[in-house]
Amino acid sequence: MKKGIAASKGYAIGKVFIQEHEEIVITDAKVSDVAAEKEKLSLALEASKEQLTAIKEKTLAEIGEHEAAVFEAHLTLLDDPEFTGQMEMTVESESLNAMKAVQNVTDTFVMIFESMDDAYMRERAADIKDVSKRIISNLAGKGGSAFAITETNTVVVAYDLTPSDTAQLDRSKVVGFLTDIGGRTSHSAIMARTLEIPAVVGLGDITKSVKNGDSIIVDGIEGFAIINPSEEVIAEYQAKKEKFAAEQEELKKLIEVKTVTKSGKRVEVCGNIGKPEDIDQVLANGGDGVGLFRTEFLYMDRDQAPTEEEQFTAYKTVLEKANGKQVVIRTLDIGGDKVLPYLPLPEEMNPFLGYRAIRLCLDRKDIFKVQIRALLRASVYGNLCVMFPMISGLEEFQAAKEFVEECRAELHAEGIKTSDTTQWGIMVEIPAAAVMADELAKYVDFFSIGTNDLIQYTLAADRMSEKVSYLYNPMHPAVLRLIKMTIDGAHKHGKWVGMCGEMAGDEAAIPTLVEYGLDEFSMSATSILSAKKIILEQE
Amino acid sequence: MKKGIAASKGYAIGKVFIQEHEEIVITDAKVSDVAAEKEKLSLALEASKEQLTAIKEKTLAEIGEHEAAVFEAHLTLLDDPEFTGQMEMTVESESLNAMKAVQNVTDTFVMIFESMDDAYMRERAADIKDVSKRIISNLAGKGGSAFAITETNTVVVAYDLTPSDTAQLDRSKVVGFLTDIGGRTSHSAIMARTLEIPAVVGLGDITKSVKNGDSIIVDGIEGFAIINPSEEVIAEYQAKKEKFAAEQEELKKLIEVKTVTKSGKRVEVCGNIGKPEDIDQVLANGGDGVGLFRTEFLYMDRDQAPTEEEQFTAYKTVLEKANGKQVVIRTLDIGGDKVLPYLPLPEEMNPFLGYRAIRLCLDRKDIFKVQIRALLRASVYGNLCVMFPMISGLEEFQAAKEFVEECRAELHAEGIKTSDTTQWGIMVEIPAAAVMADELAKYVDFFSIGTNDLIQYTLAADRMSEKVSYLYNPMHPAVLRLIKMTIDGAHKHGKWVGMCGEMAGDEAAIPTLVEYGLDEFSMSATSILSAKKIILEQE
Repeated sequence: MKKGIAASKGYAIGKVFIQEHEEIVITDAKVSDVAAEKEKLSLALEASKEQLTAIKEKTLAEIGEHEAAVFEAHLTLLDDPEFTGQMEMTVESESLNAMKAVQNVTDTFVMIFESMDDAYMRERAADIKDVSKRIISNLAGKGGSAFAITETNTVVVAYDLTPSDTAQLDRSKVVGFLTDIGGRTSHSAIMARTLEIPAVVGLGDITKSVKNGDSIIVDGIEGFAIINPSEEVIAEYQAKKEKFAAEQEELKKLIEVKTVTKSGKRVEVCGNIGKPEDIDQVLANGGDGVGLFRTEFLYMDRDQAPTEEEQFTAYKTVLEKANGKQVVIRTLDIGGDKVLPYLPLPEEMNPFLGYRAIRLCLDRKDIFKVQIRALLRASVYGNLCVMFPMISGLEEFQAAKEFVEECRAELHAEGIKTSDTTQWGIMVEIPAAAVMADELAKYVDFFSIGTNDLIQYTLAADRMSEKVSYLYNPMHPAVLRLIKMTIDGAHKHGKWVGMCGEMAGDEAAIPTLVEYGLDEFSMSATSILSAKKIILEQE
Repeated sequence: MKKGIAASKGYAIGKVFIQEHEEIVITDAKVSDVAAEKEKLSLALEASKEQLTAIKEKTLAEIGEHEAAVFEAHLTLLDDPEFTGQMEMTVESESLNAMKAVQNVTDTFVMIFESMDDAYMRERAADIKDVSKRIISNLAGKGGSAFAITETNTVVVAYDLTPSDTAQLDRSKVVGFLTDIGGRTSHSAIMARTLEIPAVVGLGDITKSVKNGDSIIVDGIEGFAIINPSEEVIAEYQAKKEKFAAEQEELKKLIEVKTVTKSGKRVEVCGNIGKPEDIDQVLANGGDGVGLFRTEFLYMDRDQAPTEEEQFTAYKTVLEKANGKQVVIRTLDIGGDKVLPYLPLPEEMNPFLGYRAIRLCLDRKDIFKVQIRALLRASVYGNLCVMFPMISGLEEFQAAKEFVEECRAELHAEGIKTSDTTQWGIMVEIPAAAVMADELAKYVDFFSIGTNDLIQYTLAADRMSEKVSYLYNPMHPAVLRLIKMTIDGAHKHGKWVGMCGEMAGDEAAIPTLVEYGLDEFSMSATSILSAKKIILEQE
């Protein structure tokens, strides 16, 4: 039995198929014919594009728009002159072989993204690695072939699965997968959850511990794999598997159910999204709306900031798709560890305690204005709530709000309508905001507790720092007290409180949060149904 | 009139003497005769040592032990093979001219220290610059001459004053000084306060705005300089000056006075120290004891950690000098931005939220043990309180306390006595500790509020980051609430609360802190008398 990280719920009982982890040896060799090497690179880039286009189309047809977007992002990378242009330049200026050039350029990009404390941002690193691997594989003449799985009831065992590997898994044959590395928030893990393929990742050396054809159990709930289990264990898991399937069927009945506690309190369960199309999955899972739309995604993977028109379209799309359900959009939370190529920021010793989010937006009203105008214009298309990130005190909220009114007056002067029922709130993610919640609640329309940052600041522990991540604990009594203070402070003035950090989807935390009176939970789409079930069981 | 930073209180009315800011041009020139260049360097180092020894002895005789220690530190630097050895090596390995070699080595050291968020640490950078300037000046054949001031009532105007410049000021002639750069915590500012010479620093371009012989007023209270004032203004300042002198005399009467508020509450006013000898100045200013002994200083400027014996001697010295008054010693607060050459630490993206202080000590019990044993051994020599920095929750305090008991048992087994009246407390500098103060107070003997860090974490604002330092506000309502929660939590369980951050010495904050019931204030020695006066006036 090997322990890993449960990445996709469910049980699978099957036979091992090992995906060989083929190392391509990359040397520092210089090339004499630079033009020929550039031509090789160009062909490999072209081949990569063709493969990805095919995978994207297959995914779109067989899985969904949301999943296909990953490959759209990969294709965008291949079209990004910053990315592929640098590879060419490296071949040219250093007479370096193309594989090494691809690797060097990729490493730089990967390093930038991996250093960020944001699960989503770190996944950009995974995307880049995936694309890089494909280009290098094409340069090595190995094509981008999928694996040939012929048996049903196959459990794929791999060092790592790229999103493209995962998307190409034949669902009629593959019942689960296990990997040596990876985390819960990797694209492959997310895709596995959508495909409802049980998966355990981060198993360390599972590829070394099994051989092809071994009998194996995947426990995607507890996060382990059982190699060559006894008949007894197989029977036990067969029963678990059937029970789980029945439960999943039960959960699906909750899609249309309004979440109300036993004592009759209505609790909203919403989804977090990063791109407009992500709302589809939220609604498909019975979400009451969007509790957090991270607008950073509109600003990323680009050479310049999105225009007002582009942003307006994105916000309008979400509001229209929500069809009257509430949509909470967070204004730009960039800076600190999240950087944009077209927005140079000062070097800071402690970026988490630095120039970011509302601090940056209030300082750079040129950037802020584009977003606020787009939000105000979109406001008439649905039930919009806007929240400002990293608010530490009343002055910042008031300054942001004043700026909103300036922009509104400007739009009205241009003859453009705005909604007057839009709600304006703040993220409670800095301890000061939680401590002063009863005062702030007089002025804001709502709070949304951002637990990821709140926990880090309250405990002065960067969860990305290996040496202190053990301190990062959502159930720390001080964190719970601050959450309680925030909810009590809001309710005292008749305002509602949501939560959009990872804690909102944490099944162990939900009962406490319901008890404290949290009004809205927002989480990844795939957690909504389980959360609804737990909330329905609370007093 | 020019505005700067008030660095040393008081008023001066005098004539300008400009200290020329002589730029020595340093080139990248290579040398052909490396041996000769090394000899030049060696002579310059020797000359620097002689000059510094003379200045140190003059300072010791005319100013005091505490001030002379600065030059002792400079001499130690000159004896540090890490420092001067690297200069020699740079000349040798790069055939570089000695001035440039000195500059390069210095720049590296300065950069390391300047990047730290600790006023004291940053002053190490100033020390290094001061020494470097002296060596280069000696290499340029300009010696280390002091300025020749012949007139009485002279106000020295300089780009910057090094501690050695300041120490050499002739107090019978110099009545004040003004500089273009510098801050309140620079050694020269500290020395000016001790010498009771009014000073304003950070004036920008004062050296360019005056000429020798100009009439000038130094306002060391409000922090400005008035160039060529009218007769009227001079008369006004003459009156202010006399009033200030009278007040200073009044303040001195408070040295022996016990600080009690009007309603009869006894409030202790103590001093912060970094080296054992610093206690002299605290006691001379009527301090009730030491509220913070930063033990980091014992660990700095060395090749290896101080031995148990060295630490024991330091702690015993302070306890004996305190003569029964309370001494609060903080265990090692290293890590994050404060690094030691012999203790390699992991690179972290946000060192303030990382591996430091008690986190490091509980992880590195080998280092912690030496200090705890030394503290326990010293405990029998006075009224000792020990506090652990960066405590985020009960578990850490209990783990530290358990370790103390292990060390105590070990000492007893060796036949060494320890005091059983030592008090064990924590720094409240992480929001979680303030929020949970009422719970933690059940277990600790006392709290000491570390406002510098508490403010940074509560507002998620690194005060060293230029772009967000405006958010760093000790009087932010959230900060005040957390302080109140800490005091109330402690008093509920009959424990006392001190404060050792800069806020404790802030005259604008003291009335509020007294009102909240703070039991002990700890600050720089020179602020004690003014603080006593304010506290005596409170209800």
